Amino acid sequence: MSGFHILKCTEVPQYDALQSAAAEFQYDDKLHLRNLCNDSSRCAGLTAVHMSEGFRKIILDYSRQQVTGETMEMLFDLADAVGFAERQEAFRTGERINTTEDKAVLHHMLRMPKGYLFSGGSHGLADKILEEIHTVRDQVVIFSEQVRSGTHLGITGKPLKTTLVVTCGGMHLGIEFVSEALSADVTAAEAAEGRSIHFLSNVDPVDTFQTTGHLDPEETLIVIVSKEFDSGETLNARSAMKWLIQRLMKTGNYTESQIIAKHVAAVACINSNFSKSAPGQLGIPRNNIFKIWDWVIGRYSVCSAAGLLPLSLQYSGSIMTQFLDGAHDMDEHFFNAPLRDNIPVLLGLLGVWNSTFMGYSSRGILPYAHALRKFPAHVQLVDMESNGKRVALDGVELHHSSGEVNFGAPGTNSHHPFFQLMHQGRVVPADFIGFMESQRPLDLPGENVPSHDELMSNFFAQPDALAYGKTFVDLMQEGVEEGLREHMVFTGNRPSSSILMTRLDAFSVGQLLALYEHRTAVQGFLWGINSFDQFGLELGKLLAKHVRVQLAASRRTGATVQGFNLSTSTLLEAYLANGKQQKNV
Amino acid sequence: MSGFHILKCTEVPQYDALQSAAAEFQYDDKLHLRNLCNDSSRCAGLTAVHMSEGFRKIILDYSRQQVTGETMEMLFDLADAVGFAERQEAFRTGERINTTEDKAVLHHMLRMPKGYLFSGGSHGLADKILEEIHTVRDQVVIFSEQVRSGTHLGITGKPLKTTLVVTCGGMHLGIEFVSEALSADVTAAEAAEGRSIHFLSNVDPVDTFQTTGHLDPEETLIVIVSKEFDSGETLNARSAMKWLIQRLMKTGNYTESQIIAKHVAAVACINSNFSKSAPGQLGIPRNNIFKIWDWVIGRYSVCSAAGLLPLSLQYSGSIMTQFLDGAHDMDEHFFNAPLRDNIPVLLGLLGVWNSTFMGYSSRGILPYAHALRKFPAHVQLVDMESNGKRVALDGVELHHSSGEVNFGAPGTNSHHPFFQLMHQGRVVPADFIGFMESQRPLDLPGENVPSHDELMSNFFAQPDALAYGKTFVDLMQEGVEEGLREHMVFTGNRPSSSILMTRLDAFSVGQLLALYEHRTAVQGFLWGINSFDQFGLELGKLLAKHVRVQLAASRRTGATVQGFNLSTSTLLEAYLANGKQQKNV
Repeated sequence: MSGFHILKCTEVPQYDALQSAAAEFQYDDKLHLRNLCNDSSRCAGLTAVHMSEGFRKIILDYSRQQVTGETMEMLFDLADAVGFAERQEAFRTGERINTTEDKAVLHHMLRMPKGYLFSGGSHGLADKILEEIHTVRDQVVIFSEQVRSGTHLGITGKPLKTTLVVTCGGMHLGIEFVSEALSADVTAAEAAEGRSIHFLSNVDPVDTFQTTGHLDPEETLIVIVSKEFDSGETLNARSAMKWLIQRLMKTGNYTESQIIAKHVAAVACINSNFSKSAPGQLGIPRNNIFKIWDWVIGRYSVCSAAGLLPLSLQYSGSIMTQFLDGAHDMDEHFFNAPLRDNIPVLLGLLGVWNSTFMGYSSRGILPYAHALRKFPAHVQLVDMESNGKRVALDGVELHHSSGEVNFGAPGTNSHHPFFQLMHQGRVVPADFIGFMESQRPLDLPGENVPSHDELMSNFFAQPDALAYGKTFVDLMQEGVEEGLREHMVFTGNRPSSSILMTRLDAFSVGQLLALYEHRTAVQGFLWGINSFDQFGLELGKLLAKHVRVQLAASRRTGATVQGFNLSTSTLLEAYLANGKQQKNV
Repeated sequence: MSGFHILKCTEVPQYDALQSAAAEFQYDDKLHLRNLCNDSSRCAGLTAVHMSEGFRKIILDYSRQQVTGETMEMLFDLADAVGFAERQEAFRTGERINTTEDKAVLHHMLRMPKGYLFSGGSHGLADKILEEIHTVRDQVVIFSEQVRSGTHLGITGKPLKTTLVVTCGGMHLGIEFVSEALSADVTAAEAAEGRSIHFLSNVDPVDTFQTTGHLDPEETLIVIVSKEFDSGETLNARSAMKWLIQRLMKTGNYTESQIIAKHVAAVACINSNFSKSAPGQLGIPRNNIFKIWDWVIGRYSVCSAAGLLPLSLQYSGSIMTQFLDGAHDMDEHFFNAPLRDNIPVLLGLLGVWNSTFMGYSSRGILPYAHALRKFPAHVQLVDMESNGKRVALDGVELHHSSGEVNFGAPGTNSHHPFFQLMHQGRVVPADFIGFMESQRPLDLPGENVPSHDELMSNFFAQPDALAYGKTFVDLMQEGVEEGLREHMVFTGNRPSSSILMTRLDAFSVGQLLALYEHRTAVQGFLWGINSFDQFGLELGKLLAKHVRVQLAASRRTGATVQGFNLSTSTLLEAYLANGKQQKNV
């Protein structure tokens, strides 16, 4: 795979044109958003609407981004020049676009309906993969309905109403985002009546203590989600299983394998030699294992059994089918809509513009929906692990920083933590996400507006506040005291996108998931990087192993600390000395 | 207050020297952290230890920051040159350093022990304030013990085991951080046995639905925390009280005021005309109100009744006294230790160095402690709302961006979301925070090390991985396949600080709170800004009011949307049209 060349956005003529355009936005007051937003003909062009079933809409209004119609044309040209359409098509048709690991990237296939007519690519292979995907989807539905209906009971005969998802690192973030987003949706909440879902993800034993602390093992089904059962995932699986088995053994004369058969399932890559595999070694029976494939990437795994099994247990297979349909709807939009109407493409191009040309290094994800409070953390995972790269696909070092620091919080909770800095400190391009309907409307007598309107007043107001700002002259005219005016000036000219959707339910949660997955992919395609590997995690893992070996040796045999620099040795010695003092575990 | 001049760090000769030094770090390979970290004499100097009661330590190791001993001397000189010591002393002695609002900043007084001998400043005034603080502290302890012991019961005679903290914006973040941090501490957990604490903070009615959904109103005490009862806080207070009152009225023949007297308390600024005040208007009796003062700033309010009342209800007054003692211990360290040994000063100077001189715009907060999972969100609030400013205290525009984007997640959960980007993408200076002892040690048979050692292996390894990186030559020598080497190169030279503490309990949670409050203050003092006002929140509030008025008029009388730009009008019309279709609330 060496020796090839990939065209990067920095290598095409449009790059220089865009750089010049970006420079103009820095000094030309005519290009201040205050002026741009008052130009109605410009604004009318900077919007896109995606309609889907049930008259639901996604409206993207990007008129408060620091772009004009011409900037957008240059960005579309840039995409054409680097061969965006070919890259997107290679992704769609299952080419091995993850070249460093020689794998195809197929998470869009996870949400294709049964018998989907796949155009282009290697049909036979695609049909076979889709069939396998649906085999597992069916298995997930059958198993989760058995548990939900009480056909599959816990070992003491109680229904398994609690799902404990055990994983390590980041795979819980997407599942948790979806689970929280659906928890206040009326239909999904009804389906989840009496059930609950919990996550154990940190190797810190405090997580095990806190997460299992309130659970009843007799009612708990553990779902271990782990592609490869590495050390952290295995540790968490063993911690959770130890808690479960010890507690259940006290309730009756059961063997470990009897308990595991009823109370432990796993989602894993499994090979032919099952008994020697990690889940096999943990004693989990083959029938309780749900397959994911080597091509499933942790951060893009929510639509595989990794997400579907726990979420179907909580919300039912039929709710999760709506979720998958929503994600598929966004896939179809992404692969088929022209660039100018294509919401993930527009968001991705604006991401590249803000990051590579305008020089903004972070990005706010601001859902005006409390139910999306776990969404920013999931976007962090998807975007930062995908696009925080040093080199292009061909191994050549990038001429720009790729990836942005994504951060956010829901609704009005974000105001105090972020908005002082976003209005008067650093420029942070932001995505405002809002909904026309509330999952749980509330209209208190005596209030001017229903609570959802109160919330949404902020969704509509903040982007304009960021764009327009407030001048010294405004403050003078308002009669603000002399010494205070400078402190109350808002420079404005701070870019944002507004995404207004009809309602938040299983279908639209699926759309949102896929929308932000594809936004990240678009940026990767433009930059010419591999958004689907993650070699940046390896070095830390390797060095942690050295420390672990040292700690084990020092704890057991009092071995002296060696092989580290002075600082690390000193810290390790302080750590070990304290352990000796207090006769640690 | 106009016309005065404040010396900024950009105006003193040390600024230019530090700029030159920073430039050298960009290109001089001798200053790569790989080389700096192998220089034992340098590393030995870049550490500070704070000892306090019970042999507990805080070790700050900043040898993996891109500094030498000389850089630090220049930073100390910079602090001297801008008059850091005077600014710190003015803070300590209660001068009105929040000049734009003409207020003193006194949150350190909130944790002074009774009868503390206050040196310097206006003694009489300080003594009076401290007396008032302790009067309220005593009231909090008495009330919380009445509730905890069952002397004060709910209206149906049940103990009030559940505290529902109602606020809006950010004030819950500090309380939630402390509450989560203590929840796995053995002593604190015992004190909280059978009790729980919940937070309603978002005006989104979904928050009310989700938060109250699982609570039993008969056992719930609502604590409204609001300095000024603005529209959002009042809305949330009314939502929560409506839920409580409606539900309790079904259990017996009670009046609203009977229910409120037993089930609602508030922490608020109150003036002489109580019956006309917001809490008075809500029907909360005077005896259920705990005072905060106008000088208490939301983000610095955890040690006031705002935090103490809910946390004492959950954990007892005696646990919270340990917490206050920890915060006070850090205050004493901050106000008395020489700059070179002063941990908040060192962290603040490094923050200024990384941000203003090295040009890094964000900062990772990475506690290797699951119990600190809410700490990064609190630091976001404290730091970004305090230091995201446009102008200096004298109203002069800053020559640099102030404030950093702070973000983070606990322990190993942060690896996948952040570490790819932090190792191979953008440079993000990070604080690693770890503990020598686990709150809940776990040693699984068959594992190489106890779980806490597994966790801490990462704490010790990641900073070195970031600093050293891995070269192309390393990879060649390891025999990595040709086309992959570039993808597996880590440039290293990524700065971090390691903070190793003895254990996580009420005392050290107090220390951590004060440490990060003072770190932020140090940066503000260096930059010459006001870290204690927040005018940047005003414009959004004002524009939201316009939108609210429009929505109310359109909902009620069908008034057409006007007074907004085309984009906002279009979005508002789509929003209102959908409301009409579905005959909204």
